[in-house]
Amino acid sequence: MLILYAAFHGVSRTLIRVSTPGKVTLFGEHAVVYGEPAIATAIDRRVRVEAERRGDDLIRIEAKDLTLAGFKALLSPNGSITLEGESKKVLAAISYVKRAVELIQEKYSVKRGAHIVITSEMPVGAGLGTSAAVAVSVVKAYSLLAGIELNKDECAELGYNVELSVQGIASRMDSTTVAVGGILYIDPKAEKTYEGIACRRGFEGLVVGYTNREASTGEMVERVKRFRDDVPEIVTPLINVIGEVARKARTYIEAGDFQRIGALMNINQGLLEAIGVSTSKLSQMVYAARCAGALGSKITGAGGGGCIIALAPGKEYEVMAALRAIGVSAFRASPTSDGIKVEEG
Amino acid sequence: MLILYAAFHGVSRTLIRVSTPGKVTLFGEHAVVYGEPAIATAIDRRVRVEAERRGDDLIRIEAKDLTLAGFKALLSPNGSITLEGESKKVLAAISYVKRAVELIQEKYSVKRGAHIVITSEMPVGAGLGTSAAVAVSVVKAYSLLAGIELNKDECAELGYNVELSVQGIASRMDSTTVAVGGILYIDPKAEKTYEGIACRRGFEGLVVGYTNREASTGEMVERVKRFRDDVPEIVTPLINVIGEVARKARTYIEAGDFQRIGALMNINQGLLEAIGVSTSKLSQMVYAARCAGALGSKITGAGGGGCIIALAPGKEYEVMAALRAIGVSAFRASPTSDGIKVEEG
Repeated sequence: MLILYAAFHGVSRTLIRVSTPGKVTLFGEHAVVYGEPAIATAIDRRVRVEAERRGDDLIRIEAKDLTLAGFKALLSPNGSITLEGESKKVLAAISYVKRAVELIQEKYSVKRGAHIVITSEMPVGAGLGTSAAVAVSVVKAYSLLAGIELNKDECAELGYNVELSVQGIASRMDSTTVAVGGILYIDPKAEKTYEGIACRRGFEGLVVGYTNREASTGEMVERVKRFRDDVPEIVTPLINVIGEVARKARTYIEAGDFQRIGALMNINQGLLEAIGVSTSKLSQMVYAARCAGALGSKITGAGGGGCIIALAPGKEYEVMAALRAIGVSAFRASPTSDGIKVEEG
Repeated sequence: MLILYAAFHGVSRTLIRVSTPGKVTLFGEHAVVYGEPAIATAIDRRVRVEAERRGDDLIRIEAKDLTLAGFKALLSPNGSITLEGESKKVLAAISYVKRAVELIQEKYSVKRGAHIVITSEMPVGAGLGTSAAVAVSVVKAYSLLAGIELNKDECAELGYNVELSVQGIASRMDSTTVAVGGILYIDPKAEKTYEGIACRRGFEGLVVGYTNREASTGEMVERVKRFRDDVPEIVTPLINVIGEVARKARTYIEAGDFQRIGALMNINQGLLEAIGVSTSKLSQMVYAARCAGALGSKITGAGGGGCIIALAPGKEYEVMAALRAIGVSAFRASPTSDGIKVEEG
């Protein structure tokens, strides 16, 4: 339980409950940084934030279960959470909450005290958009507590600013996807920067495998940038092809052609290998999933450790078993149309 | 010991000994089929052919040791050569010899009897150019026995025709590289289709890892072709980038910049992953080599099993140990400037 202090003013509702989904990137990570389209989807694992009015001007933040029970064993060999690593992650999570509250306070000149409790069904720092979900949830919950009604796009934009200010580098893809929900086609160069994609047959069969990160998102983005600066005649066309894969994938998702979606995931994985963001473990996970029957599998997120996704309709359990057999955590993750949700209490 | 029959005429020298190196493709496999440049090098593992004049008109072919001792254990669990598999491979090798002899007989109207003995320091069918080396060696040895002096380019061209007629599909890269020797820049679209590359610092530190093939070269080439027909807007630029990698690699080889050569090998591997010719085992081998200190590693040849190469100057033994630890055979392979060689006896 950690406590932060801030000034306080005024009263509105007494208890707000907000939940926001995590996300996976289906296509286009890294290339989206250079203006290429990407496809991400909100998944049915959520971050929950409760914000309760306080009688004073304090902001009290409680981070309850920021890892899934299933991941605890992985993160520490003896089955319990290693204090060093976890407390750092919890502190990092707290800084998103703190910045989200500050942003609302600055922007809308409110100084309301609140008790904010955060729980997460996803591992933190794994590339599943947990930090974006925390930022967006707190923006929504704390602003509502102050009587301010923000729509999903506004929450996404403020969530993006929170991430930017905490991390120094951020992508609008994460905050938009978790705030809006659904499968989104993100095109940084288009007038409409995102559009929902409707999958004709419903989109099922996603499995997420998770291993420890060896490098942060920022480090991985920086590594690709240096690589591009070094051999632009090779890396620039690779980034363009990743964009082309995302464009093609959109049409296959709309058609519900899972075989072809899987094939494109495998191409995208090769391109991520080519730009140097895979690792021995991620590659092993990708092949374990394919050998267990996945139609396609790839890194999701920045790479350098973290998560893979596999598309394995009807073979989810086989793929999860194969991933667990090589010592990594795995869970099903269905796309969800629910973005940020408020349950008033 | 297998015997083939052919007609016979005339007499010249009595015993010819020819040896021809194997080869690895450093950059550009598959893309070279579509006219992009590639880089291959002859390696210090050789195929040896002895052709001896016979008093009759028979062609007797003896295939002695067509696998390395080190590979026997791999190819058959009990340490001996499995008759089924091996006899098939030996028969395949024999068909190259038979066709090479026929080609010389047809082209130069000779019908000389000979006893041809073939030994190889490399596994057959692993993508190391063994079949090209057999074809080229027999072309050279049998033509010399008939008093015909063919230069290296002529041997390469006839060797290519042997491969084409036995396999139905072939690349001039293999027969040229083994006949000419050295590190070659192969550019199918240039006026000079190949040029030797001189590495300023000498080119060392290559390790080859070998696993069983799951698909033939022809099948892999066909698979890439189907993939390209299906999504040309993605696969065509990938093939172009593979060519770009080979162009860039040439300058780094000339400069002796092994760090950058390694980085390009890793990019090339990602692109081979993207076009779908890698396997779980090959990917594991590639990462095992990198984790053991290789500057770069990639599939060499058509993929679908077969060989990887790793560039690991000063770390050759660590890389070989890492490959053996995951159950595959490994050996050092230094580039050699020696192409086809005749030792008259």
